[in-house]
Amino acid sequence: MAPVGDAARYARRVPKRGRRPGETKTREAILDAATRSFAALGYDRATVRAIARDAGVDPALVMHFFPTKDLIFAAVMDLPFDAERALADVLAGERDELAVRLVRRFLSLWEDPETGPAMLGLLRSATSYDTAAERLRELVVARILQPIAGAIDTPEAELRSDLVSAQLVGLAFVRYALRVEPIASAEPEALVAALAPTVQRYLTGELAAPPA
Amino acid sequence: MAPVGDAARYARRVPKRGRRPGETKTREAILDAATRSFAALGYDRATVRAIARDAGVDPALVMHFFPTKDLIFAAVMDLPFDAERALADVLAGERDELAVRLVRRFLSLWEDPETGPAMLGLLRSATSYDTAAERLRELVVARILQPIAGAIDTPEAELRSDLVSAQLVGLAFVRYALRVEPIASAEPEALVAALAPTVQRYLTGELAAPPA
Repeated sequence: MAPVGDAARYARRVPKRGRRPGETKTREAILDAATRSFAALGYDRATVRAIARDAGVDPALVMHFFPTKDLIFAAVMDLPFDAERALADVLAGERDELAVRLVRRFLSLWEDPETGPAMLGLLRSATSYDTAAERLRELVVARILQPIAGAIDTPEAELRSDLVSAQLVGLAFVRYALRVEPIASAEPEALVAALAPTVQRYLTGELAAPPA
Repeated sequence: MAPVGDAARYARRVPKRGRRPGETKTREAILDAATRSFAALGYDRATVRAIARDAGVDPALVMHFFPTKDLIFAAVMDLPFDAERALADVLAGERDELAVRLVRRFLSLWEDPETGPAMLGLLRSATSYDTAAERLRELVVARILQPIAGAIDTPEAELRSDLVSAQLVGLAFVRYALRVEPIASAEPEALVAALAPTVQRYLTGELAAPPA
């Protein structure tokens, strides 16, 4: 039996209608190459030609599977990530450890080799490619953070969810995209410990500080 | 006498050797158009042709002043921003309000029409253009946050400065680049109040939370 990671990858990438095994394998190689390209360069600098070269196929074959670069990007971002499940996991358990579970789950999305490179590609593309910005807002803010802030029933739920996204997306930006040291090499659990009190306050604590 | 803002702009943009007034004005128009272009599109999508059109000049004239797009970008990012002064301002005063002054100063860099659009161009470019990533790291981390963390003499100063940068750059990303609401329209002082306790803890507080 295939390990869970492989099964998820398979489920994600097999087209709905049957293809010959060689076609599935080629499509998979193209998506893997595209994922690496978007993660390294972002959407604008990634090229069909370089993706084809990395996948070991002709650019025309890439266009056969994905007629436009937008379609390659959409396929790469069709992540094996179950937002409802993640949400349920974060919301289950002690309320005062909500943030520990959330930061840990967020980091695992980036550390997991099945989803991390695609997330980095999404982040690198979101500053100049509207589709990527929308996908990032939808994935992180609309499907995870807003439901969490809504579920815990505190005033200013939307601002709270935005503050959490500013902290988490900023962590991803500095750690994975800019690769600023030492935070780029810090252990995930050290970051969970450092960030969880911040995220917990944004979700359930006082938002206003004493005036300065 | 010109207001301070204008004086700073003038000092920034006048070339070292004298040019005829018409040339200075043209160069200024090109830099203003380039600033708008990088802020809206990021480095990769901005084009010399569109910058020339927006400045009302021929693309060849843009190339006369700036032979490459990299050189236009460098000139736009030569901001009228005095990092040493900002640093001194943040470090002066009560230590327990350090973060209030820092978050306020950081936000003013983005809200000021003299520096905000260039900062947004820098952020939009930093995910895929190495020069921009390096400039952002240098401006925010090396020239401001690391000296602050170093000056307050706490252990793990470098990790602390990275944590602050993750929070502040993340705020800029979500507010100015992704424009997620309601944080995109929040009053700066509401954000100072919400973020200052986080930044203060990263700078001077306990970094590790109780284990979960």
